[in-house]
Amino acid sequence: MQVWKEYQEKNKDRFLDELLQLLRIPSVSAKSEHKEDMLICAEAVKQRLYEAGVDTATIYTTDGHPVVYGEKIIDPNKPTVLVYGHYDVQPAEPLELWNSGPFDPVIKDGKIFARGSCDDKGQVYMHIKALEILVKTNTLTSNIKFCIEGEEEIGSPNLGKFVSSHKELLKADCILISDSSMLSLDTPSIDIGVRGLSYIEVEVTGPNRDLHSGVYGGAVANPITILAKMIASCHDENNHITIPGFYDDVTMIPDEERKLMSKAPFNETVYKEDLGVKELWGEKGYTTNERTGIRPTLEINGIWGGYEGEGAKTVLPSKATAKISARLVPDQSSIKITQLLLEHFKKIAPPYVSVNAFEHHGGEPYITPIDSKAYKAAAKAIETTFAKKPIPVRGGGSIPICSLFEKELGIKIVFMGFGLDSDNLHSPNEKFNLENFYKGIETIPYFHKYFTELS
Amino acid sequence: MQVWKEYQEKNKDRFLDELLQLLRIPSVSAKSEHKEDMLICAEAVKQRLYEAGVDTATIYTTDGHPVVYGEKIIDPNKPTVLVYGHYDVQPAEPLELWNSGPFDPVIKDGKIFARGSCDDKGQVYMHIKALEILVKTNTLTSNIKFCIEGEEEIGSPNLGKFVSSHKELLKADCILISDSSMLSLDTPSIDIGVRGLSYIEVEVTGPNRDLHSGVYGGAVANPITILAKMIASCHDENNHITIPGFYDDVTMIPDEERKLMSKAPFNETVYKEDLGVKELWGEKGYTTNERTGIRPTLEINGIWGGYEGEGAKTVLPSKATAKISARLVPDQSSIKITQLLLEHFKKIAPPYVSVNAFEHHGGEPYITPIDSKAYKAAAKAIETTFAKKPIPVRGGGSIPICSLFEKELGIKIVFMGFGLDSDNLHSPNEKFNLENFYKGIETIPYFHKYFTELS
Repeated sequence: MQVWKEYQEKNKDRFLDELLQLLRIPSVSAKSEHKEDMLICAEAVKQRLYEAGVDTATIYTTDGHPVVYGEKIIDPNKPTVLVYGHYDVQPAEPLELWNSGPFDPVIKDGKIFARGSCDDKGQVYMHIKALEILVKTNTLTSNIKFCIEGEEEIGSPNLGKFVSSHKELLKADCILISDSSMLSLDTPSIDIGVRGLSYIEVEVTGPNRDLHSGVYGGAVANPITILAKMIASCHDENNHITIPGFYDDVTMIPDEERKLMSKAPFNETVYKEDLGVKELWGEKGYTTNERTGIRPTLEINGIWGGYEGEGAKTVLPSKATAKISARLVPDQSSIKITQLLLEHFKKIAPPYVSVNAFEHHGGEPYITPIDSKAYKAAAKAIETTFAKKPIPVRGGGSIPICSLFEKELGIKIVFMGFGLDSDNLHSPNEKFNLENFYKGIETIPYFHKYFTELS
Repeated sequence: MQVWKEYQEKNKDRFLDELLQLLRIPSVSAKSEHKEDMLICAEAVKQRLYEAGVDTATIYTTDGHPVVYGEKIIDPNKPTVLVYGHYDVQPAEPLELWNSGPFDPVIKDGKIFARGSCDDKGQVYMHIKALEILVKTNTLTSNIKFCIEGEEEIGSPNLGKFVSSHKELLKADCILISDSSMLSLDTPSIDIGVRGLSYIEVEVTGPNRDLHSGVYGGAVANPITILAKMIASCHDENNHITIPGFYDDVTMIPDEERKLMSKAPFNETVYKEDLGVKELWGEKGYTTNERTGIRPTLEINGIWGGYEGEGAKTVLPSKATAKISARLVPDQSSIKITQLLLEHFKKIAPPYVSVNAFEHHGGEPYITPIDSKAYKAAAKAIETTFAKKPIPVRGGGSIPICSLFEKELGIKIVFMGFGLDSDNLHSPNEKFNLENFYKGIETIPYFHKYFTELS
């Protein structure tokens, strides 16, 4: 559509400027010190929705951070697409590893460097600008609803309640989410699944206070040593997870799909070089793509205890703590695995220590069909702008609300991720390629067009 | 000596006030931000030595923090006692666990709460006040030299050079150190040995940047998991240390001394209750006192990696780090064991990660004879003021300079520790009982008297 292309070309610098403004708001949902920033960001998203052409936009308060809802209804009889995304971001730490401020976006080598540039403000903004293009060129053929939440990075604890009490408001024919990646601009792909998540924190307490390691060392259990032993026991020599019952509900994907997966381009040398590792690690019997796509995993996301400062301190600490999460695949249940993990770490604790374990958040694994109208519309839209058929792949990340949406609203989700795995999501120097940003804005209007045509 | 008692009684409030002033100086040697405080503290010690009656007091600069030296020579033909101590303190972290400011001393329940109250400012100050008593009552019968350094808590890296280049200045007939503890005021004891120390830091690097645990988890080694496995492998199921060669040079103490040790009062129930643990931990085949006195140990003093903040962050971190130290017994060599540890952690690192290991500081184990004049003078002094013969015991801590003094100056050390194991050395809420402080000031003059008489 020439008219879309021309509109984008004329306005692309403004589109980018607007995104940069959004990226300057430190909307870190995990940290209570950013509560005010969350409100400012929600307000900004609402404002941008209005400017793009929605009929109404509203900030819905929740028990946590608010949800921004907006809609453009052109005809109740036309198909409706619900766009889901999130305006909250991961904490930026460790700050010293950023080359520029996480909330001070910088354009370098054709990339936007900032926390949230790809996950998910940049991708949400593609949808807002796609709406603007459709509205301003009078080419919108479907109804579009936006549900942009502020708690995705902390497990969407309040979205369930919002969705179940606003079913009519959110009613749609499909849900469109851009919060994931594609293999590359040369090898476009569509995620057909996301892994589930269980996330817990385990605190091991030995003595009731920090002790002098010379006076007490050797006679009192060191909680760091005990926690290390507990963590070490969770993977065997083949890197299988040893927690009893962990794999019980794992459904292996059909051989045919596994074969198809193995055709996705993967260059181990390039992959290792990019990560700076000499050898890859993982569960024996599976390829790298399988390890991150179709197999469950257990990762330690953080650990601390004792003295972390400069120099030496001869302390035997009272406590050691770890943040531990598992990625889940069909048909594992996040609720069940979280319970299993909590109980496991309590059970394996030796009598020298006490263990306090609690849950952070979880989400169920989700698989989307590839024969739906929404998937077909997405595939066709990508083929139109990339001149290549997208490959269906399973993503390693988690979008906890997927199974929730399906359960509450009874509609299927389609993922159109325009990020790259190398975008440093959740890491220092998160980036989003300008080319991907603009390609997303170019592609999304086609999705709406094709989805209407197929409906 | 009635005259000593009267002088102390008349001046005890001032003695305490002066100590509190010293405790207000945050002389943390490990942290470069306290460099200025170290100079202020050295100057204060020098000033107090002058006020107490030394002939000269001098601050000797070193490549690190300065040494304070002072002396009172009454007659070159009389015996000379060199008092060693340190004005530097351990870092105060974790600050949130202190009930009052670490450098804002508080007297509560007959105890002085402050960093350094016992280790070692409080104990150094007993010696300065003992000198004052002896000088002001004209009862000094020996020469006294003071060597109060500022780097004990970081392994005395510059004291060796100072001692070897000031042998004449430091010449003495014995070295007296109060930087340890006694069993209790009811069961006075004298340390006859201190353990050695090796202290290293091990940094494990996996990928070259923090990664999204969903996108890469399961396919790339997590440095926390690997470090945990490395740490877990260092103790077997009997809590023996598994590092090859670690025990090679350990000399078992004679059965007779072991039998004597077993007679020291020890109540396991009280010990466990004090520490708040249900069960003790330690090397199979040894009692608690043996585990902390005559056996070498390996402790993790600190660990960190990944996200430590509020809430959840799904990161697979680039690095994980641990501070690891070993306590050594005769005839282990700190230099040899440090090398062994550094090599071991590099050797056991799997090919998925790289390991950087470096040394913090060490010190050799030290044993002092119980038939020396100095030991006899100390035992007699304690018997005089405590009305009980002190028990000889082996301390678990380390005073790295002991073997250095012996080597450079050719003289023996005697330990008169007036602290208690429960004084929270190196921990939050470090304390020193007022009773112990005053009892130390009362006892030390007798040491000088008896040492002269025995010489």
